[in-house]
Amino acid sequence: MPQNSTPVNRIYSHNDPHVKPIRSLHTRTERERTGLFYIEGMRLVAQAIRYHADIETLVICPPMMTNLYAEKLARRLQGTGTSTLEITPEIMHSIAWANDPQGIGAVVRQKWLPLERVKLGGKLCWLATDAIQSPGNLGTILRTSDAVGAAGIILLGEATDPYDPATVRATMGAMFSQRLVRTTPEELARWKEPRQWQIVGTSPHATLDYQEVQYGDTPTILLVGNEQKGLSEQLQAMCDFVVSIPIVSRSDSLNVAVATSIMLYEVFNQKRRSK
Amino acid sequence: MPQNSTPVNRIYSHNDPHVKPIRSLHTRTERERTGLFYIEGMRLVAQAIRYHADIETLVICPPMMTNLYAEKLARRLQGTGTSTLEITPEIMHSIAWANDPQGIGAVVRQKWLPLERVKLGGKLCWLATDAIQSPGNLGTILRTSDAVGAAGIILLGEATDPYDPATVRATMGAMFSQRLVRTTPEELARWKEPRQWQIVGTSPHATLDYQEVQYGDTPTILLVGNEQKGLSEQLQAMCDFVVSIPIVSRSDSLNVAVATSIMLYEVFNQKRRSK
Repeated sequence: MPQNSTPVNRIYSHNDPHVKPIRSLHTRTERERTGLFYIEGMRLVAQAIRYHADIETLVICPPMMTNLYAEKLARRLQGTGTSTLEITPEIMHSIAWANDPQGIGAVVRQKWLPLERVKLGGKLCWLATDAIQSPGNLGTILRTSDAVGAAGIILLGEATDPYDPATVRATMGAMFSQRLVRTTPEELARWKEPRQWQIVGTSPHATLDYQEVQYGDTPTILLVGNEQKGLSEQLQAMCDFVVSIPIVSRSDSLNVAVATSIMLYEVFNQKRRSK
Repeated sequence: MPQNSTPVNRIYSHNDPHVKPIRSLHTRTERERTGLFYIEGMRLVAQAIRYHADIETLVICPPMMTNLYAEKLARRLQGTGTSTLEITPEIMHSIAWANDPQGIGAVVRQKWLPLERVKLGGKLCWLATDAIQSPGNLGTILRTSDAVGAAGIILLGEATDPYDPATVRATMGAMFSQRLVRTTPEELARWKEPRQWQIVGTSPHATLDYQEVQYGDTPTILLVGNEQKGLSEQLQAMCDFVVSIPIVSRSDSLNVAVATSIMLYEVFNQKRRSK
């Protein structure tokens, strides 16, 4: 509900009780306990607004806001009554994860979709990932997933936190368009049972070429393994097809974000061609 | 020339004059001054041997070599007379860039190909990159380039050092199969002038779809811009085609390693189909 009065808190001390909780969002434990995460920079704040993310607190540092667009964003958020912390450059550097904070950031509420609400809903497909380890890889995957119009990612097992600052940064803001689901392989298998979906796994050892599967006829979940171990036997058993992306060199694999992006573009290109 | 006697230097001090020069290879200045770089771990050492890289010094830490294959690699190198430094775990940690050094590493001579020796030589294509900033992105690009059988990368302008530890690590050893060339946009334009090659640039703003170009008929250089600025006008002017990878979302770009990998797979898939 738009309001005219904006609560602005001006903070000049490192030890201010408003600052420490934001800084603590660097740790996964605190992010999970609070259900919040922190985003830095104009681009991410702009994307959060565009996709109606639930912004709890706007954090600004006027001396560092050299960009008019950042000021405009801040005013727009303040106009809707979002509470604002105004901090000094020193404090901004202390809470920033990046080396080059831009004078604007926000505390945002995490958003998780329950597995039973997974639907295609006009989107290209879904992704499921098994315990991706690198936050950067996960962020890059979310970025491509957004680019091709996929729905989101089902994170299986002990996965990297998608709200990790390194993941959020690597998505370049694309994460706000993506739905996120956390579940187990068992739950996913149970979910799939009564549904007419196909799960297509990728494994460097599979003999079926990734371009030989039709992705457009049936709602599809692309399932990718983690960086070290690939797709476990349990997960392969859940797949309708297991495909590989051919490689001519003596290397044994592609980077996981690259492999996932190539799969996503194959689904996307098949859909483009069929129109 | 295989020899039977292997010079092994056992070192117990951090300050040993053999150790400092290796540690200093973390910096680009020292790598460029000496023409050397340092690789860590079994996989990279194995790839260096496989591709006949010029290994100057083998570095081993016997108490950390828990893997039989690492011991076998070390013996094989020592059998060819490669000089060996045997160091303590403490020293190994002090020279390692990774947190988990595996007890084996090597000092390797850098290898640069002069631009005039760039040929297709049965390979898929060449890549040219303009000032890629992230060492990880450059390494991931080299990994995909190896996977599809491309020849190597022409690095334009002030690019990331491909011998940066983060790049080397991200290639997963694939870099040893790839030729590396350093030059300027002007030199590349002059090189191209008399030759029947095509340069295909990628830009998010181009209107030509990347799947609409035939890559197989003419020797091809795929040219990609850097993370922030894309392809400069000077570089676009050098291209026979400028293509874009379509995107449906409101994001404006893909990760540069993902975009380059998608281009490489398009060239590779066209070649596979034409056979």
